Amino acid sequence: MKNLVHEHERIDDLQINNLKIIQNPEGFCFGIDAVLLANFVKLKKNAKVADLGTGTAIIPILLAGKSKTSHFTALEIQKDIADMAERSIKLNRLENRIKILSIDLKDAEKFLEVNKYDVVTSNPPYMHSKGLINADDKKAISKHEVKCTLEDVIKTASRLLRHNGRFFMVHRPIRLTDIMFYCRQYKLEPKYLQFIHPTYNKKPNLLLLECVKSAKPELKILDPLYVYNGEGEYTDDIFRIYGKTCIKEEDEFCEYD
Amino acid sequence: MKNLVHEHERIDDLQINNLKIIQNPEGFCFGIDAVLLANFVKLKKNAKVADLGTGTAIIPILLAGKSKTSHFTALEIQKDIADMAERSIKLNRLENRIKILSIDLKDAEKFLEVNKYDVVTSNPPYMHSKGLINADDKKAISKHEVKCTLEDVIKTASRLLRHNGRFFMVHRPIRLTDIMFYCRQYKLEPKYLQFIHPTYNKKPNLLLLECVKSAKPELKILDPLYVYNGEGEYTDDIFRIYGKTCIKEEDEFCEYD
Repeated sequence: MKNLVHEHERIDDLQINNLKIIQNPEGFCFGIDAVLLANFVKLKKNAKVADLGTGTAIIPILLAGKSKTSHFTALEIQKDIADMAERSIKLNRLENRIKILSIDLKDAEKFLEVNKYDVVTSNPPYMHSKGLINADDKKAISKHEVKCTLEDVIKTASRLLRHNGRFFMVHRPIRLTDIMFYCRQYKLEPKYLQFIHPTYNKKPNLLLLECVKSAKPELKILDPLYVYNGEGEYTDDIFRIYGKTCIKEEDEFCEYD
Repeated sequence: MKNLVHEHERIDDLQINNLKIIQNPEGFCFGIDAVLLANFVKLKKNAKVADLGTGTAIIPILLAGKSKTSHFTALEIQKDIADMAERSIKLNRLENRIKILSIDLKDAEKFLEVNKYDVVTSNPPYMHSKGLINADDKKAISKHEVKCTLEDVIKTASRLLRHNGRFFMVHRPIRLTDIMFYCRQYKLEPKYLQFIHPTYNKKPNLLLLECVKSAKPELKILDPLYVYNGEGEYTDDIFRIYGKTCIKEEDEFCEYD
């Protein structure tokens, strides 16, 4: 097992079905958003699933843990991160269920079948690319739209999905207009939207969205999800979602505001 | 004063600056949404304001009560409701500040200057028009998109507003995708969005939106507004917004869900 882990990397126990993940603490580690998205995704048996910008492959690994699905394809443009994700897949013996492709998601159509996927998931870079960002900075590529824009993600998801296929995404409320605009433009109709608030009287800092390809317009906003209760402790909802997954104090949730 | 009020109508005291409004209890009476919208609107001195689909003129009357602005133009397609609004204006001696135009807002450009308004407000019909609706039903016209669509309202607001002019609207979350899509399409960039929840752990059933014409994208979601506290009483926020305006039990807020 040791040779699967490179210098500066560590293995984290996901505390669910004995799943583990390799992460580089100097790079981008998964946060509460990935766990919330994996919990939000609904998967039918044998669903064909693509994850766009998979990073450490946290989303397909968590989804593999909660489902029987064996058709995960996960795209990651950064070769060394894709390699690390590949090693996490081996570590969990999920090679037969999750396939990592180190490609640009804008080229997805060259490698994947279009109009065939039942589900597409994404925890994309949240922030606009600004001129100051170093385009080779791995952390920047995970957080900023250096290599792909929100429009690229939504357009690609729409191309891959079958009629009535579902797109699940976690993102930030500041981008809500862009999200709604591009989803409508690329025929991914928003059906369910849930806002995540740090606590009950604060504005949301994350959102979960479920779209259905070519569905008729009608959005349902779900009851809000609060991370902390009035005493500063995690709410029952958060404990239920995390299950046995460890909640670490360095989770990136609090950075957003 | 009596001859200003017709059969089946009544005068309601708005409990602010001695303002009153004529309403027909058999028609569409203003609800909490109009009061919340009026509170949400920011007006600079001498702002030129248009209200689209003004109904009883509740929005411009409340705005006249909280500002010094004397350039309100309020559009209402239904002639008898426009006439009732006109009588409310006289009752409040606001003839020099609020002008009622009984025209179709889709014809606004024929009667109003384009690219000149500082602020446009609207509490439009919330619901899609369905085949079963009687197109002559006054209440249906106020609630359903019989005479104008959401797109018509947003397009007209955009045409009337000057560069960087502001559009304020109250609407229902179920239409959020349509709202964001059309606002972006017609260059009214959503800048502030506030959700109104019946209480803290329930999904929102109203939203307040402020857009700025031709602004750059960046949406701020505001802290949520809760109508009732855990004990089923109005929250301090609601009491502060209503001020002395009476809160009536028949307010339409609870109908939405």
